[in-house]
Amino acid sequence: MTTAYLNGEYLPKEKARVSVDDRGFVFGDGIYEVVRVIEGSIFAWPEHARRMTHGLSEVRIPFGAPDVDGLEAVCLRLLADNDLTSGEATVYLQVTRGSAPRTHYFPPAGTQPTVYAAASRFTPSPTMRDDGIAAITFPDFRWTRCDLKTVNLMGAVLAREAAHEAGAYEAFLIRDGVLTEGAATNAFAVIDGVVRTYPLSNYILPGVSRHYALDAARDVGVRVSEVPVTQQELLAAAELFIAGTTTDVAPVVSLDGKPVGDGKPGPVTRQVQKAFLAKLYAPAAAAR
Amino acid sequence: MTTAYLNGEYLPKEKARVSVDDRGFVFGDGIYEVVRVIEGSIFAWPEHARRMTHGLSEVRIPFGAPDVDGLEAVCLRLLADNDLTSGEATVYLQVTRGSAPRTHYFPPAGTQPTVYAAASRFTPSPTMRDDGIAAITFPDFRWTRCDLKTVNLMGAVLAREAAHEAGAYEAFLIRDGVLTEGAATNAFAVIDGVVRTYPLSNYILPGVSRHYALDAARDVGVRVSEVPVTQQELLAAAELFIAGTTTDVAPVVSLDGKPVGDGKPGPVTRQVQKAFLAKLYAPAAAAR
Repeated sequence: MTTAYLNGEYLPKEKARVSVDDRGFVFGDGIYEVVRVIEGSIFAWPEHARRMTHGLSEVRIPFGAPDVDGLEAVCLRLLADNDLTSGEATVYLQVTRGSAPRTHYFPPAGTQPTVYAAASRFTPSPTMRDDGIAAITFPDFRWTRCDLKTVNLMGAVLAREAAHEAGAYEAFLIRDGVLTEGAATNAFAVIDGVVRTYPLSNYILPGVSRHYALDAARDVGVRVSEVPVTQQELLAAAELFIAGTTTDVAPVVSLDGKPVGDGKPGPVTRQVQKAFLAKLYAPAAAAR
Repeated sequence: MTTAYLNGEYLPKEKARVSVDDRGFVFGDGIYEVVRVIEGSIFAWPEHARRMTHGLSEVRIPFGAPDVDGLEAVCLRLLADNDLTSGEATVYLQVTRGSAPRTHYFPPAGTQPTVYAAASRFTPSPTMRDDGIAAITFPDFRWTRCDLKTVNLMGAVLAREAAHEAGAYEAFLIRDGVLTEGAATNAFAVIDGVVRTYPLSNYILPGVSRHYALDAARDVGVRVSEVPVTQQELLAAAELFIAGTTTDVAPVVSLDGKPVGDGKPGPVTRQVQKAFLAKLYAPAAAAR
């Protein structure tokens, strides 16, 4: 039985239910995070907490930094209660603007945000990591506040479904002729030996793994350039990869059914991946 | 006590709860409608049902025309159970892709959509109808499938909240220098005696009231032009109005704090409004 957290209570997940008046359900009016847990330690909690606090503040859900900070203890309790303190796991966290009679504008002051969290066993995919994934290109018709990790995810859902049906893992989103990001990961191209990715802006999520991947690249002496990759550059790129909380750095070996480079994970991707994984697993290794 | 409908059951609304795994809650992965009810008759049910069926089909939630048609009986039962067969009411309907372990791509075949409906008493605002409303302009940063009535409504939420805080009712959304629509209504300008509104496309909702308002205008000999209104034209328009299921045709008498025309509902708006209301109330009047 899985124990989840909802509004201050720890309860069997199947009993975790929200009102049909919850603004998450009727407006997608909420912010979420997914964190990675290795041997009971949350990877990059401060970065996830900071992003969540920023997102909640931008959409003005009254759940401030101390409230978000308090979710770390919720995560740890969920990990303990679900026997996830060894091996790997993820915790999903979501805060909505709460339950209130439906108005597009905000509900009355004092409406309590809905706070939900659940932990799950996670097993990294060696195939994804070692052999890489397939991706497709897909139009980026999402809104232009993609920097906010809201649950308004229909654009990502439709993109990922298109990928899934094409036998691919990720959809590379194209807006105005350039690659912005993956539907649920950040996207990178290696062009002339330089790692290129879309700059931080309202068009992409400021991915925690994106940050660590770029750091990893710099650490091993790979040049990084935050300049958008055009669709033409994308199709001709020597290497492609993605970064995300549940994908880590993973090579992209085919795009729209055609091989990327020679169809095998490239040397720059491997270097970045290795340095990234060292960062990811370092705290757990240090604790042993 | 309000009776609501959830997945085949009629139950007290406060007991209507959905799983935290509902894709409505975690992705905003659902389609909704709001219908207007006058003396127990649903106004324009076929148009609402057709739009809902189309939306569900576009996002591929397996809930087809016969299923949507079946919701008419649900509405009528909710009206009866909640003592709403006389006077005015609204029914809110929402269908999500159901509850399943979280994956961005679609859940396994056979996952049952979540179907929710609730009826409420509705009292048209004489002030809105007679004196008109205030609006603000606001950036349209929504996705570019605004033709789909999904519950990915964060853009509309933030726009309506900005309007609310400015003491206005509606936010007129501006994309690429032109007025697309209101955050939860369609928007119209009267320019040189012609009713102008954004053409049907992926940038606006094909409003049922929009359709009836344009018909009403044509009926009374007012010319209609589905050509976008530029921001400059908007600010200089002689008259502005909105149309929506819970607003009917309502004059907009101020925009961003400045009077529209002479600050009173204009003559063309009044003509269209009168013809619109005749259509809206005709079926109920005929039944008397």
